[in-house]
Amino acid sequence: MLIIGERINTSRKTKGESVVEAAVVARNAAFVSDLAAKQSEAGADYIDINAGTIAFDEPASLTWLAETVQSSCDKPVSFDSPSGEALTAALSVYDSSRGVPMINSVTLEDARFDAMVPLALEYKAKIVALAMPEDSLDNSPEARIGAAETLIGKLTEAGIKIDNIYVDPLTFPISTGDDAAVNTLAVMRAVRKAYPEVHIVAGLSNVSHGLPCRKVINRAMMPLAIEAGLDAAIADPLDRELMAVTAAAEMLLGKDEFCMNYIGLARAGKLI
Amino acid sequence: MLIIGERINTSRKTKGESVVEAAVVARNAAFVSDLAAKQSEAGADYIDINAGTIAFDEPASLTWLAETVQSSCDKPVSFDSPSGEALTAALSVYDSSRGVPMINSVTLEDARFDAMVPLALEYKAKIVALAMPEDSLDNSPEARIGAAETLIGKLTEAGIKIDNIYVDPLTFPISTGDDAAVNTLAVMRAVRKAYPEVHIVAGLSNVSHGLPCRKVINRAMMPLAIEAGLDAAIADPLDRELMAVTAAAEMLLGKDEFCMNYIGLARAGKLI
Repeated sequence: MLIIGERINTSRKTKGESVVEAAVVARNAAFVSDLAAKQSEAGADYIDINAGTIAFDEPASLTWLAETVQSSCDKPVSFDSPSGEALTAALSVYDSSRGVPMINSVTLEDARFDAMVPLALEYKAKIVALAMPEDSLDNSPEARIGAAETLIGKLTEAGIKIDNIYVDPLTFPISTGDDAAVNTLAVMRAVRKAYPEVHIVAGLSNVSHGLPCRKVINRAMMPLAIEAGLDAAIADPLDRELMAVTAAAEMLLGKDEFCMNYIGLARAGKLI
Repeated sequence: MLIIGERINTSRKTKGESVVEAAVVARNAAFVSDLAAKQSEAGADYIDINAGTIAFDEPASLTWLAETVQSSCDKPVSFDSPSGEALTAALSVYDSSRGVPMINSVTLEDARFDAMVPLALEYKAKIVALAMPEDSLDNSPEARIGAAETLIGKLTEAGIKIDNIYVDPLTFPISTGDDAAVNTLAVMRAVRKAYPEVHIVAGLSNVSHGLPCRKVINRAMMPLAIEAGLDAAIADPLDRELMAVTAAAEMLLGKDEFCMNYIGLARAGKLI
């Protein structure tokens, strides 16, 4: 499981306060560095950076975030923006010695696709591909599966290696409909079956939006998603129980030979 | 999800000590009553009682357990023994005003089958049917699925209603083989598909036997098992996180209309 640490995102709130946004606006490097280092230490494979709420200054803010994260840990960075301008600016300071970057995310929308793909090729980046139907009112599993297939086809045709494509099936809150999670899992299963080599990524915590005790819901979703084909997650690595459940689910699903990873994490004191 | 509280079992150890066994041998009613009441309060639908380690005195011990549990909570009882003699004795004191009892468990073994079925019919009991192949060396999913099918056929033929049958697919520890849990899930899926009306039960905690941080593994197994068809679990209701994950997984799998059960548990302070 590739864990993409989600904490450095200006839209995140802590007890109603936009503390990350405030830190980015103030260029509070200590705050951001600490978040990066803690996520890295907790097992994040990538550190996601998102300055989307700072619309007037996103390119400079995302660039500053990249530099700040790179100065505080050695993990590669996931550049999270729908803006080609912001991505172009921020990727220009990327230190590729830490591995290829991730671009989060491309869609079927022409302008966005045309901006992202050259960047992905230039940086040999991993790229998140949102299974967002062109008809934005149709969120059925069938429409999302179709969008994923079209996007995978267009991306590979443009020269992106399938191993660099991370399909995101879209995770809708269970509070919006009893079949929301089942539908997301169905998209994962169909994509996994049709493209065994593609990666499947999700921001699972969206499934619990609007409900109480969200962390429990996120932890229950993880094993279900892994079973359906998930192999990367935009998640909070500082939720130790979530990380432990992830390792346990992979072990239970036969993805941890002789339980060595799980036992190693236990010995390292990384499990609850 | 029908939760069968597993704590009153003389084989259970707490920090290496057989505290339940000691309490049963000493007829420490306060200890057993407390375990029953706590499990009931935490959401157990049935209270399992097992005195299997007290071989010289199992009928009397199981009977005493039934009386003691009944005096401390109003939940129905799961009588857990392979012994017809012990079950006959203990069921004779059962207070059926609390609902039908559960008999745990029957197998294809003739003597055991012939002892259990008349009791199940007499008490209109729910009955756990172990998917244990007659060739005890063959634990393959195919052999277990075959055993489940044969057992369901024999039980219904003997007059047991399918709604009273709880098939247990056998849960082997993941430490015994990387495919142990996947195989158990495969048995659940096959039985669920072939018999939509039968119940599927498991003692999921066995999956983590021999490994560190067992509770995390049990919590990861629960959503996977529910997805595969589980609708009853022999589990520890005092593990609040496990109970919360169970409710969350059922909600995510579309089994909790408008999230009402989950929200109700949250409001009642039952979730983490």
